[in-house]
Amino acid sequence: MRHNYLDNTPINKAKEEYGKYLSSVSYTGKTEKIPSCESSGRILAGAVYASICSPHYNASAMDGIAVRAKDTYGASESNPVILGSEQYTVVDTGDPIPDGFDSVIMVEDVTEIGEGKVSILSACHPWQNIRQVGEDICMGDMIAPSYTKITPSLCGAFLAGGVLEVEVIKRPVVGIIPTGDEIVSPKENPEKGEIIEFNSAIFSSMLHEWGAETEIYDIVKDKKELLSSAVEKGVSRCDILLVLAGSSAGRDDYTSTVLSSLGQVLFHGIAVKPGKPAVLGAVGKVPVVGLPGYPVSAIVIMNEIVKDLVDMWYGREGDDAPKIKAVLGKRVVSSLKYQEYVRVTLGKVGDTLAAIPLGRGAGVITSFTKADGILAVPQNSEGFEAGEEVEISLLKDLSQINSSLIVTGSHDPLIDELSDMLKRKDPSFSLTSSHVGSMGAVTALKNGQAHLGCIHLLDTETGEYNESYVRKYFPDGGVKLVKGVGRVQGLMVKKGNPLGIESFADIVKGRYVNRQAGSGTRILCDYLIGKNGMNKVDIDGYRNEEFTHTAVAALISAGNADCGLGIYSAAKMYDLDFIEICIEEYDVLIDEKAYGTPQVQKFIEALKSEEFKERLSDMGGYKIG
Amino acid sequence: MRHNYLDNTPINKAKEEYGKYLSSVSYTGKTEKIPSCESSGRILAGAVYASICSPHYNASAMDGIAVRAKDTYGASESNPVILGSEQYTVVDTGDPIPDGFDSVIMVEDVTEIGEGKVSILSACHPWQNIRQVGEDICMGDMIAPSYTKITPSLCGAFLAGGVLEVEVIKRPVVGIIPTGDEIVSPKENPEKGEIIEFNSAIFSSMLHEWGAETEIYDIVKDKKELLSSAVEKGVSRCDILLVLAGSSAGRDDYTSTVLSSLGQVLFHGIAVKPGKPAVLGAVGKVPVVGLPGYPVSAIVIMNEIVKDLVDMWYGREGDDAPKIKAVLGKRVVSSLKYQEYVRVTLGKVGDTLAAIPLGRGAGVITSFTKADGILAVPQNSEGFEAGEEVEISLLKDLSQINSSLIVTGSHDPLIDELSDMLKRKDPSFSLTSSHVGSMGAVTALKNGQAHLGCIHLLDTETGEYNESYVRKYFPDGGVKLVKGVGRVQGLMVKKGNPLGIESFADIVKGRYVNRQAGSGTRILCDYLIGKNGMNKVDIDGYRNEEFTHTAVAALISAGNADCGLGIYSAAKMYDLDFIEICIEEYDVLIDEKAYGTPQVQKFIEALKSEEFKERLSDMGGYKIG
Repeated sequence: MRHNYLDNTPINKAKEEYGKYLSSVSYTGKTEKIPSCESSGRILAGAVYASICSPHYNASAMDGIAVRAKDTYGASESNPVILGSEQYTVVDTGDPIPDGFDSVIMVEDVTEIGEGKVSILSACHPWQNIRQVGEDICMGDMIAPSYTKITPSLCGAFLAGGVLEVEVIKRPVVGIIPTGDEIVSPKENPEKGEIIEFNSAIFSSMLHEWGAETEIYDIVKDKKELLSSAVEKGVSRCDILLVLAGSSAGRDDYTSTVLSSLGQVLFHGIAVKPGKPAVLGAVGKVPVVGLPGYPVSAIVIMNEIVKDLVDMWYGREGDDAPKIKAVLGKRVVSSLKYQEYVRVTLGKVGDTLAAIPLGRGAGVITSFTKADGILAVPQNSEGFEAGEEVEISLLKDLSQINSSLIVTGSHDPLIDELSDMLKRKDPSFSLTSSHVGSMGAVTALKNGQAHLGCIHLLDTETGEYNESYVRKYFPDGGVKLVKGVGRVQGLMVKKGNPLGIESFADIVKGRYVNRQAGSGTRILCDYLIGKNGMNKVDIDGYRNEEFTHTAVAALISAGNADCGLGIYSAAKMYDLDFIEICIEEYDVLIDEKAYGTPQVQKFIEALKSEEFKERLSDMGGYKIG
Repeated sequence: MRHNYLDNTPINKAKEEYGKYLSSVSYTGKTEKIPSCESSGRILAGAVYASICSPHYNASAMDGIAVRAKDTYGASESNPVILGSEQYTVVDTGDPIPDGFDSVIMVEDVTEIGEGKVSILSACHPWQNIRQVGEDICMGDMIAPSYTKITPSLCGAFLAGGVLEVEVIKRPVVGIIPTGDEIVSPKENPEKGEIIEFNSAIFSSMLHEWGAETEIYDIVKDKKELLSSAVEKGVSRCDILLVLAGSSAGRDDYTSTVLSSLGQVLFHGIAVKPGKPAVLGAVGKVPVVGLPGYPVSAIVIMNEIVKDLVDMWYGREGDDAPKIKAVLGKRVVSSLKYQEYVRVTLGKVGDTLAAIPLGRGAGVITSFTKADGILAVPQNSEGFEAGEEVEISLLKDLSQINSSLIVTGSHDPLIDELSDMLKRKDPSFSLTSSHVGSMGAVTALKNGQAHLGCIHLLDTETGEYNESYVRKYFPDGGVKLVKGVGRVQGLMVKKGNPLGIESFADIVKGRYVNRQAGSGTRILCDYLIGKNGMNKVDIDGYRNEEFTHTAVAALISAGNADCGLGIYSAAKMYDLDFIEICIEEYDVLIDEKAYGTPQVQKFIEALKSEEFKERLSDMGGYKIG
């Protein structure tokens, strides 16, 4: 059980010194010649000069007749000039002007008067209606300087200027070596202990966005010799090399060892969270980065370190993500030891843009898929208080964020179904949902952090749902309650109900899995405990909390627990038995100020639609109007 | 000389009705299944649900030992718990938790005490340091709704959720048919009358940016039957078809005729400038657009009409270019009959963002390559006055525009060379140059529209350059004059000097090509006319004005003129003979407020550098220091 400790180098120091080292070993972009017509989006390696004029001959700019200007002098409405057939030639747009002619009269201004003669009513001046040589581009002119990003119109200008090939910065080839004994290529039914290798797909996509090409190598087992030969092969073929996982200091972490023997390790351990166990090194002039195995950690290192390498290759300044100010919706506590990157969702409610922190687990890739932005908490800062104005780096378009409907509260898959229905009707519709439980929804609406809140709050005194809570928490109004659906709550147990659980009181027969405090299901659980005269401490697993119905179902299905409260559709999805307990009212609380907006009205329309009823009936466990 | 007239349909009417028609014939995006790992950047055609949990088994989150939490209860610093070898298993991060165990203790907290036993100092709770099944994604959860744009992290989430393939909107295939008797594929030395076909490269690049694939067909000659069969073939293979040129109503314009016989012509002639002669039609459910032959006209129709077709295919709202307010630097007069699109450069001088209109010729592709933005002048508007605040659609990044060094004034290729040198040193350096002549530079600096102005202004009374102009036009200061280079001005004539031009007075022997009023070279010309006692009306071509030295050289080389004033390097480039007239002082006028900025300092540094002297010496015709 060997374990070494990592350094904790501040991120900016690591970035700067790594860059300096790579400059010192002449790490820089290679160039290549490519056809001009395929060059859009690329970066010019050198200035481009026109090798011909455009147009390269005097061309008619109109359909009409080419004439000598002198022959037309004096023509007017009262004194037309007649030109004989030898004095003009019919030309179409783009035709060369025959020698001796120096002007074009457009067809609308020419009257044919028979015997090949034409009459004209106004004189023309030399070079009228002629695109003279070089009108657009002159031979020898610089069409674009070095390091210009080529646009579609520049592509055209190169070709117009007779430049058929241009020298551009070659796309760097980034090799990706996934490592690990448990790692397997993506598959539909992995075995226990097989971890699906999805990191290379994420990093490869990121690299393509940054203008790099990628080569993904076979998965390498945790053997030092195998990794060593894979790295040797990689650096011989690639401009940048990434080693996925094995970058920490555990039993099977060989990246650092291998790299020090083949080349240089500059840093091992960066003061960022997540992302600490990264290795920054090089073999010759090829930078080699060891990325942490957890996807969120590795994405941080990709954004902070690997993107720099691609920018340096292209000789460009990194284009930082656009930043905006937002009000932090929840306190964020962070260690003084690291610069921490916290994923947040953003929601505009009224005039306030609120940033709500997402889960901070390094293994939770969905915290990135759901994130609208990143809050960086500097090293030596303890974090931020709720209500503080903070700066967020945007991951999505601000206009989409500003128009997004913010739905929060109790988890139910039906919210995702509504979101899908709304997007199918109007792909620009954007809905951000989060699961904070029914009481979380009440708080969010009170604090102006959501437009809609989904609640199923049982008044344990009256047995009534939701309405008494609205009266209590919104005594002065400000919200509307829209009736949603009735849904069946019950106990989920393993298929065949091996422990013979018949009623809520039977949950003590096995290990329970609970929902988080503040969720409607937790309130129901506590109500049932009281009603049945039970005691919380007798319930094994009462403190084992999950945030969604599917998570509860997944744990029962996996054998981590024997029973838990949840909705029928989750039990059905996981092929669990279901003991019905009650039907609850799952309603929607709406911020009165947002009620009239098109987004909210579309949401309500979808909620009341026939299509939605059909989707619910497919899922099962709902009672609709 | 057949000529029909086109309609003049307002652009918004054409867009709306074309869209409605295409909806009515069920024009819409097709879908396809692709591997999830290659799906980043694509648009989901349907919602994606996880088919497995992630993790799909209980996995250790740490390197350490797996234990039963119950076995550790009561452990503390003063009362360590000893675990025998049967009570724990060594696990690495990602390893499955063996059956019966429910907790992991990290390696740092474990002390080996021999005989396979370990000692621990604190109790653990169930599921500590274990990534439980579904921690990230639960089977059945919707990972993303329909019409989501797939991000790199979503790619990863699909694979983590066991979804190996996803259904996305297929990229539309856009066929491009170039037409025209004179049109030839790009080549290095086209003959007279051969027009290089560069439009398909521009449009293809634009379409790729919008997410379409393209098929570029062979050039079709101006024969109705040939175009007809090309269009028939195109609509059978493509989702959208573009016919380049032949969209007007001239002798050889068959697009409209062919389209009406194979399908529908909805509009022929749109009230836009440039871009009027466009044809909007369809064959079956395939939209077919006839684009005007001039590149700038066609780019307008691409942006206004064809982009809509791609957006409609994807079911997305068009993302309009970002817009900003700018102060118009020059009056723009526009016809009431059209919506006009004027290309502008943008420059931030002091606190003002100024928009300077570029050339408006439909054939001038470089007006697009140089443009920073587009000013749309609505139909029924006569245009805008200088100084008016106008709205500009951005073509470039605003931060780049804001940091760009604005150089204007007299044309000299050395400005392009400096720009290239500066970009090679720092690729993020941005320099915008325009040729408005030396007096134009004085005006631009007075009006705060440029940081630098290049001038060579001869005081015809004293023979001195530049300084007296500065005293006259900037009596209160506000500018600095930095010495630039001496350069040789002279007469350019055909190789071998066939007309025997020996001095300026000899220019009457042939056709002259002049420079625009306000240019330093024009002032020199007028000075020499006076000095030689000549008369402007005796000079054939005095009114034939060009904006650059290379343009003058190109016209002499092409035979459009016999002589013109210009600099040696232009004559050399075009292999012309050169009769030296004088050496002038080409200096740089600098806005005092901008003088201290890094951009200006870098410019001056480059101007004084050895590398610049070498470049000038390669070009020839300059006298330095």
